Amino acid sequence: MLELRLVQGSLLKKVLEAIRELVTDANFDCSGTGFSLQAMDSSHVALVALLLRSEGFEHYRCDRNLSMGMNLNNMAKMLRCAGNDDIITIKADDGSDTVTFMFESPNQDKIADFEMKLMDIDSEHLGIPDSEYQAIVRMPSSEFSRICKDLSSIGDTVIISVTKEGVKFSTAGDIGTANIVCRQNKTVDKPEDATIIEMQEPVSLTFALRYMNSFTKASPLSEQVTISLSSELPVVVEYKIAEMGYIRFYLAPKIEEDEEMKS
Amino acid sequence: MLELRLVQGSLLKKVLEAIRELVTDANFDCSGTGFSLQAMDSSHVALVALLLRSEGFEHYRCDRNLSMGMNLNNMAKMLRCAGNDDIITIKADDGSDTVTFMFESPNQDKIADFEMKLMDIDSEHLGIPDSEYQAIVRMPSSEFSRICKDLSSIGDTVIISVTKEGVKFSTAGDIGTANIVCRQNKTVDKPEDATIIEMQEPVSLTFALRYMNSFTKASPLSEQVTISLSSELPVVVEYKIAEMGYIRFYLAPKIEEDEEMKS
Amino acid sequence: MLELRLVQGSLLKKVLEAIRELVTDANFDCSGTGFSLQAMDSSHVALVALLLRSEGFEHYRCDRNLSMGMNLNNMAKMLRCAGNDDIITIKADDGSDTVTFMFESPNQDKIADFEMKLMDIDSEHLGIPDSEYQAIVRMPSSEFSRICKDLSSIGDTVIISVTKEGVKFSTAGDIGTANIVCRQNKTVDKPEDATIIEMQEPVSLTFALRYMNSFTKASPLSEQVTISLSSELPVVVEYKIAEMGYIRFYLAPKIEEDEEMKS
Repeated sequence: MLELRLVQGSLLKKVLEAIRELVTDANFDCSGTGFSLQAMDSSHVALVALLLRSEGFEHYRCDRNLSMGMNLNNMAKMLRCAGNDDIITIKADDGSDTVTFMFESPNQDKIADFEMKLMDIDSEHLGIPDSEYQAIVRMPSSEFSRICKDLSSIGDTVIISVTKEGVKFSTAGDIGTANIVCRQNKTVDKPEDATIIEMQEPVSLTFALRYMNSFTKASPLSEQVTISLSSELPVVVEYKIAEMGYIRFYLAPKIEEDEEMKS
Repeated sequence: MLELRLVQGSLLKKVLEAIRELVTDANFDCSGTGFSLQAMDSSHVALVALLLRSEGFEHYRCDRNLSMGMNLNNMAKMLRCAGNDDIITIKADDGSDTVTFMFESPNQDKIADFEMKLMDIDSEHLGIPDSEYQAIVRMPSSEFSRICKDLSSIGDTVIISVTKEGVKFSTAGDIGTANIVCRQNKTVDKPEDATIIEMQEPVSLTFALRYMNSFTKASPLSEQVTISLSSELPVVVEYKIAEMGYIRFYLAPKIEEDEEMKS
Repeated sequence: MLELRLVQGSLLKKVLEAIRELVTDANFDCSGTGFSLQAMDSSHVALVALLLRSEGFEHYRCDRNLSMGMNLNNMAKMLRCAGNDDIITIKADDGSDTVTFMFESPNQDKIADFEMKLMDIDSEHLGIPDSEYQAIVRMPSSEFSRICKDLSSIGDTVIISVTKEGVKFSTAGDIGTANIVCRQNKTVDKPEDATIIEMQEPVSLTFALRYMNSFTKASPLSEQVTISLSSELPVVVEYKIAEMGYIRFYLAPKIEEDEEMKS
């Protein structure tokens, strides 16, 4: 039997909104460690990894490891029926082909049960090794979101270049070019406004803006985003989920056509 | 001659927004008692009844009973041109085929006259007898509206079941099922937050959510909605209009297919 | 070389939003006097004239007169990437076929360069003589905008009639007629709420509402709008841009069909 009670239910609503643009169907995995998900986007280009640790739940009972296949749009439809202050409980009986989401209003006046059919979904869990990155940028998630959106009005790809002084986002398109530079800034009133760069060596990589824009749907989950870059590795765009875990997006850099020609 | 001056003109704007989704053309009836309307929706399934009592108007002159056929979309277009703080006066000369809506801004700086052509509309006035109901639920109109909207994302019909403890709204659809229970709650800080159940006997009835959602367009008129249920009668969904009257929606319950088979 | 630094960058954003519905491509003219534009709308019915005087810029360098052809939709796309508190600098090298918009955030943390290709646009600059007008109406721009929008829900043209007492906006359409009268009002708490009429003689002119609605897109630039009317001249709808200049729209009156028949 599975019973996970999350006092801050709005977190789960935000998680769904963060990933449902990218992933249609996915297995949620429950174990003693926590409630997690790993899935490729439908075009098999980007990877999402979610972890909500068991300690973050008010009540966490998971008698045996369970993998529950869900249609994320249907799940999002149900979670949208939860109030923002509601407590959400996820329940499933052993061997059942359904999962139940229970929403309790703060004053317990209103209690809702939404039961959803589970799906069988083939998936393979990728082991993602911990890696060293050439550069790690931490910046306000709203700023990163705004930059990706702004550049999308000009071009289709973004070149992210990191130096000690700052991080530059560039694009080019039919109507012109754009460069946005964010300087390192540690002396801010509120820590969530900081832009902090940890750089081993300068790096410059190109990514599809379409995916970056999807990733930024996770911005409501965290005031800050961390972007980890290395020439040989997919970028990791991470949003921490306070006291519970994280949502991480992985995306392989594009090989520049210019570089291809040079080689 | 007819001249009805309504200081709180926004009321009339809200009335129109409440019924124009359901009814396209209707007769407004003016008499010494008040300004009223009774109309079936275009598919002849639901009935709307509106009453604005003469005492609620600052000035109410109605020399003889008058029935004015109006296209509610056109009327709504005109009323949308009134400011929310405007005083609205409805004027018609005897025998005229037009009605005039006059909007005065609070400081009298801006005065607008909108003249609309009247229509001939056949209609029969149904006598609606006062009835005893098995259960009457009073609850926040915003809550009822939210529930109907939420259930619509899952299914097409709602089963409303009343017991002494509370009222349950249920639906089922392709993606799963949903049950929302609102408990009786009289001990609230603000009376408009109360959920109060007067029950003679338990009742459980099924309705099309589409109509319920149309009814909830009247929510801006009143903080509370009253739902009166009996097995043999159409449900009445009533929104009181402060110090003036009410808007009531009537809808026959659906006969459950299961019950049909049983019989 | 051209370098124009505008501390209140949001002004330029608003200017673009004000004219891009009317004009697709236009030449911006830079001289010692200021940054200006004159353009006909695409159907050659309305004329826009913009002036931002050099004194309004924090820094204004314009070595020689320059005419820069820009696609206003592309320019608006780029300016939308500027924050509302950003400082905007317009830069162009002599003989260059591009213009650069630089956006600096208030704390200098974020600096963006957007480079846009220039276009060759044929245009003739019309000399617009100063004229005497029969009537000049000054009124809140939000009120004028609301009236044009409201009347558009009823008819296609507006008759603007000025008398000493006030200005009347009228329209007629299939569903009825509308008249909105704004009275002269000089005794207001805030000067921007005033409606002031300077009248030499009564005037009544007819205009296409479609253009009037386009003009009102400039409302965010100014709390007041000035409407100058004469029987023999195009109306001038002017929005002052604080301490910098103005944006003016010119539109020829429609010849009433009734009048045509009479003559």
